[in-house]
Amino acid sequence: MALIVHKYGGTSMGSTDRIRNVAKRVAKWARAGHQMVVVPSAMSGETNRLLGLAKELAPPRQTASYERELDMLASTGEQASSALLAIALQAEGIESVSYAGWQVPIRTDSAYTKARIESIEDARVRADLDAGKVVIVTGFQGTDALGNITTLGRGGSDTSAVAVAAAMKAQECLIYTDVDGVYTTDPRVVPEARRLNTVSFEEMLEMASMGSKVLQIRSVEFAGKYRVPLRVLSSFTPWDIDIALEAQSGTLITFEEDEHMEQAVVSGIAFNRDEAKISVLGVPDRPGIAYQILGSIADANIDVDVIIQNLSKDGKTDFSFTVNRGDFAKAVDLLRSQVMPGLGAHEVVGDTKICKVSIVGIGMRSHVGIASKMFRVLAEEGINIQMISTSEIKTSVVIDEKYMELAVRALHKAFDLDQTPI
Amino acid sequence: MALIVHKYGGTSMGSTDRIRNVAKRVAKWARAGHQMVVVPSAMSGETNRLLGLAKELAPPRQTASYERELDMLASTGEQASSALLAIALQAEGIESVSYAGWQVPIRTDSAYTKARIESIEDARVRADLDAGKVVIVTGFQGTDALGNITTLGRGGSDTSAVAVAAAMKAQECLIYTDVDGVYTTDPRVVPEARRLNTVSFEEMLEMASMGSKVLQIRSVEFAGKYRVPLRVLSSFTPWDIDIALEAQSGTLITFEEDEHMEQAVVSGIAFNRDEAKISVLGVPDRPGIAYQILGSIADANIDVDVIIQNLSKDGKTDFSFTVNRGDFAKAVDLLRSQVMPGLGAHEVVGDTKICKVSIVGIGMRSHVGIASKMFRVLAEEGINIQMISTSEIKTSVVIDEKYMELAVRALHKAFDLDQTPI
Repeated sequence: MALIVHKYGGTSMGSTDRIRNVAKRVAKWARAGHQMVVVPSAMSGETNRLLGLAKELAPPRQTASYERELDMLASTGEQASSALLAIALQAEGIESVSYAGWQVPIRTDSAYTKARIESIEDARVRADLDAGKVVIVTGFQGTDALGNITTLGRGGSDTSAVAVAAAMKAQECLIYTDVDGVYTTDPRVVPEARRLNTVSFEEMLEMASMGSKVLQIRSVEFAGKYRVPLRVLSSFTPWDIDIALEAQSGTLITFEEDEHMEQAVVSGIAFNRDEAKISVLGVPDRPGIAYQILGSIADANIDVDVIIQNLSKDGKTDFSFTVNRGDFAKAVDLLRSQVMPGLGAHEVVGDTKICKVSIVGIGMRSHVGIASKMFRVLAEEGINIQMISTSEIKTSVVIDEKYMELAVRALHKAFDLDQTPI
Repeated sequence: MALIVHKYGGTSMGSTDRIRNVAKRVAKWARAGHQMVVVPSAMSGETNRLLGLAKELAPPRQTASYERELDMLASTGEQASSALLAIALQAEGIESVSYAGWQVPIRTDSAYTKARIESIEDARVRADLDAGKVVIVTGFQGTDALGNITTLGRGGSDTSAVAVAAAMKAQECLIYTDVDGVYTTDPRVVPEARRLNTVSFEEMLEMASMGSKVLQIRSVEFAGKYRVPLRVLSSFTPWDIDIALEAQSGTLITFEEDEHMEQAVVSGIAFNRDEAKISVLGVPDRPGIAYQILGSIADANIDVDVIIQNLSKDGKTDFSFTVNRGDFAKAVDLLRSQVMPGLGAHEVVGDTKICKVSIVGIGMRSHVGIASKMFRVLAEEGINIQMISTSEIKTSVVIDEKYMELAVRALHKAFDLDQTPI
């Protein structure tokens, strides 16, 4: 009685038995009268297998021509799983058709391996839905203006699903995954971590961007932009669970702050050990320095996260920032060979053994003293803080990687996240 | 210097090492100044793996919707191998780009799993060639007028290569495969079998259609229709073999009978054990009987090969034909349930333990007594002939399957095929 988008991750699509279970679940929703669009990922392991083959053959220098072929290659994983799901639905007696990104079409820019969706044509999908079919749309991929295949980057199927839901004005987008919702922190680190029934869009954005790897961050941005109601739930509940119960399970990502929301000040603890710290020491303290340093980094397509500039002393300052660990060597090389000579800076030092821990909560807006409580808790555990970064609804610290679990557990307890809110 | 099309089979593309060797071979041709279009098959085993997954999930009744998804699924194998080959060429320092069938586009009809090519747009490929790129075109697939992905049936990459060569007016289409040419018969059955330097298009057509599985028959028809010079050669010679030598190796399929052709009367012995024999006994001998029987078989999309109608006796006749073994049960059911009641025929009997052995030779046109020599050779070996079928350049017999190897060896020797012609 509504248009619903389901998205299934690679683990949920990992074998023919699992694909059959996905088909049974989707068939249940279709039989309940819903118009269904389903966005599956590639079968688990498939994308890695394909990219592994490419890596064995890769040229020394990775050009746009190479990245174009990577997208031709990687996009086949989702096309295959989509066809298999359509077949499994037909076996359930449900009329079903699958479309590759270019067939919808899902238009993107030409940034191979990390393209962005520009538009989705909904006419073909809508015609099939009106004819009573379940439509499978391949995740992760699209096509640029010249008809080249593009992919959206790791986790891109989440973004595909949200974008399709937005274009089709779906009532809800359900992201089925191997966890049963969004937690106060990673239960593997803190066993007392608690599932949130709802989480605000802004909190989700901060959590996703900081390593709670439930959803690709771009999908959350997309959901926010188009106000797509998004629910994260488990694909490992039995497929024949009561549909009303299923529709209320997991974690709903909301856009309104209202009385139904959980009122905790801090909603979750995010952490990320994929970053590395770089410091440029003895930089002359004059206008344009940040641009000179970070501009060259950005030109090399390296994302920068936390940025700190210390007070200057004797007309010199230190400038620190974090990058993805995979970009660390490239960034240091670039600074040493190209930036420092023109800058008159003294030294570039780096540290890959760091992690970032953040407290996130929409309640932080209206509560003072939350950040200082965080610093006190870490001090009590003897953990030295290397960098601090704050925003309206989060406070992040960079610390030695070896203290990560300790910090997360201590903060989780200190902010009462193991207690169900009243 | 010329536009050349290379086609590589699944075995040649079977691993990253083999793909690298294909890239080195193609790079050698490109560096020699040729404009190169390459059509690769899926990596060996990949199509079977994908169709195996589909079979596990397949609905009980196989509809056009199901076959559409099979094509979505199976076409991914060639898309992946094409991208990998483009990457391997880039690693060799050769600019390269791969196109899926829909990107060229290669237009086909909508007969999923066995589509026929209707047209090929050459502008995009030609622009890349003129820009100095090697163009990889996925084999086996195309797209119909509605933008659905179609596939051309098993071995369809051969047809893709020939069709691309025809559309591009290529100087030659080289089919690289795991044998080094066309033989007088299968060397696994007759160790003395000899490679032919040239074979006429008509002979190749008869050999391919009768089980010398070197080339998909439709590719030979296509080559004949558009007079595409076609060469079958081995992909297992070292990639750095002298290019002039390589260009003369294998077997060339020719369209002219000229003095350079080998003058043997019989060029080869083909055989096929994929057929089964069906006889409808006691059929009233009246006009329209053949149509009544075979029309219903054709309507069920079953191919019929040899057809025999015996002399009638007492106004009744026997009617026999062969079908693919995979269609045997379906054809017999159909005859018993739908055709015989209306026909007043007496009985339907069948035999799956048969094989067809054929002698093929363009010289048979101008030589008498070739067929009778064949029958004498088989009689001397004590082999009973069940059916006979003849054409201008071939004579086929259906015999008990257990005599197949014996028949092929005896005929190969009797027609001097183990002797190099003068």
